[in-house]
Amino acid sequence: MSEKTRQILLAARPSGQAEITDFTLREVSLPSPGDGELLLKGRFLSLDPYMRGRMDDRESYAEPAQVGDVMPGESVCVVETSRHPDYKPGDVVLAQTGWQTKFVCKGNGLRKVDTEIAPMSAYLGVLGMPGFTAYSGLRAIGKPEKGNTVVVSAAAGAVGSLVGQLAKIWGARAVGIAGGPSKCDFLVAELGFAGAVDYKAADFPEALARACPNGIDVYFENVGGAVWQAVLPHLNLFARVPVCGIIALYDAKSASNKDLLPGTIANILAKRLTMRGFINYDFTAEYFSDFVTEVSGWIKEGRIQYREHIVDGVENAPKAFLGMLNGENVGKALIRLS
Amino acid sequence: MSEKTRQILLAARPSGQAEITDFTLREVSLPSPGDGELLLKGRFLSLDPYMRGRMDDRESYAEPAQVGDVMPGESVCVVETSRHPDYKPGDVVLAQTGWQTKFVCKGNGLRKVDTEIAPMSAYLGVLGMPGFTAYSGLRAIGKPEKGNTVVVSAAAGAVGSLVGQLAKIWGARAVGIAGGPSKCDFLVAELGFAGAVDYKAADFPEALARACPNGIDVYFENVGGAVWQAVLPHLNLFARVPVCGIIALYDAKSASNKDLLPGTIANILAKRLTMRGFINYDFTAEYFSDFVTEVSGWIKEGRIQYREHIVDGVENAPKAFLGMLNGENVGKALIRLS
Repeated sequence: MSEKTRQILLAARPSGQAEITDFTLREVSLPSPGDGELLLKGRFLSLDPYMRGRMDDRESYAEPAQVGDVMPGESVCVVETSRHPDYKPGDVVLAQTGWQTKFVCKGNGLRKVDTEIAPMSAYLGVLGMPGFTAYSGLRAIGKPEKGNTVVVSAAAGAVGSLVGQLAKIWGARAVGIAGGPSKCDFLVAELGFAGAVDYKAADFPEALARACPNGIDVYFENVGGAVWQAVLPHLNLFARVPVCGIIALYDAKSASNKDLLPGTIANILAKRLTMRGFINYDFTAEYFSDFVTEVSGWIKEGRIQYREHIVDGVENAPKAFLGMLNGENVGKALIRLS
Repeated sequence: MSEKTRQILLAARPSGQAEITDFTLREVSLPSPGDGELLLKGRFLSLDPYMRGRMDDRESYAEPAQVGDVMPGESVCVVETSRHPDYKPGDVVLAQTGWQTKFVCKGNGLRKVDTEIAPMSAYLGVLGMPGFTAYSGLRAIGKPEKGNTVVVSAAAGAVGSLVGQLAKIWGARAVGIAGGPSKCDFLVAELGFAGAVDYKAADFPEALARACPNGIDVYFENVGGAVWQAVLPHLNLFARVPVCGIIALYDAKSASNKDLLPGTIANILAKRLTMRGFINYDFTAEYFSDFVTEVSGWIKEGRIQYREHIVDGVENAPKAFLGMLNGENVGKALIRLS
């Protein structure tokens, strides 16, 4: 009896903001796993901002998804059937499955996870790609020093919430930028940020200035657009700007009819800024092992908190994804698959 | 009998392109040097693009000049009278004199130069601030590797012409961007650049692509504007962009009515670029001694060539400066003061 998988496909490329009609659900039969192959049953699917980039036919660090493809993504799965010598039923693995409930694959590219250290869902968040994105970008590019002010945008998200907590552990003062008072309260009250600023508030630029009386030494960029324009005047000499994401770029509405590039370049020169784009796996060889050891330890000690925003059912992934892009979730966005 | 100095003052702030009427000449009497002071007689004044930035009331790495101030600048001088224990008449020194023929100062901030290694004018160019700008920015930020393609704009200028020659010495392929065929010929025929591209030619973007068949690994930015837009699509993954200057920014005519910032930021992320602004003196402690030793040696061995564009008389400095901003000179722009 052949297994079935339920998949979410890219149905159309968005123009500007992505919409629910850009996705479609399909159920297909899976082949039986051949020699050396495994059947995986998805437990949690990760929803991440980078996926919006894959929906466009735009040059980026990865090939765009094609219309009709399964939406790309990572999930944490349980091995259901194994014809591979390294895996047995019940093993928990991370896999690039895309948005679907079951998956047949060869063993390469899988990563076994230890659910005694943390629940399996954490390996899609604080102990997974978003966590390592925060850790590697902040350590390798941001290089916070004791007493520095570290500002992070999309601060209540999976990456941003860890950036601020790491900055604090490394002796800096963390200020988060997030949308709305409840996220800002969460950052300060639960995660221990020194300050949080609501980018939707009318006095956002002034509030950011008040929250950073000594300027900004590290700005961890997740959004771009108007938030970047507000941050730019407060960057200190020799400030470092890890460029991790640019959610604002996907939204054509935010385009300016004035050329804002000369202002950025003039600041890069005048303040000797470093802006550097990165992907977490640029730093795997150098930092991944430190990351797992240190962050696991800090979670156990209670020095790092994380929150998950879980929605049930692969059929609800498009709506949950659009909600994440609109900033509706606090913490790591996940789909529970089974 | 008191000495007189002839000075060029900032008469007005430019709006857009600087003009000859933004400068004025004044002759004033100098006080006699007091105890611990020196009277310097200027021999060569350096004209550099950064001076255009000082004419604007714009935030930058140095305070702007005020209207009525002597234009800021460095010159190589001979000590005429010394009441300072470390200097004697006839010593040759570098000093921040501004644009003027004579100067009374205390001894601090002077640098004695050795005219047996090179003629004194070289200490304003290839062995001076422009040379160290090229050396430090390329070594510390550009980090060219063997076989890399290094592109430099304003390549026939004092900084750019050394950037290309250093890139070649360090095993990379140097491609210069300059204005007009004669400068391009000079770069290839006399300085040994692998290629040179005329930014004024109608097919400039295509010619740049042809000159860089393997893309661009290091782009040493001296100009910004349309040249940056042409370079951007050819930058390779992990390319480094030392941001040294932005001549195009000073010219309001070059402003775009489209926002070019998102395109730059998207490339920083997608290609994991590093853009970093710098001033040569950020690297003095680390690299200045290496610079003097190595570049002096390469000049002696004939591996580094330099050219000077000399105009006589401080009264001609404004016109020569505007000509330099318009790209009329090849090599280091100097005013012979006496």
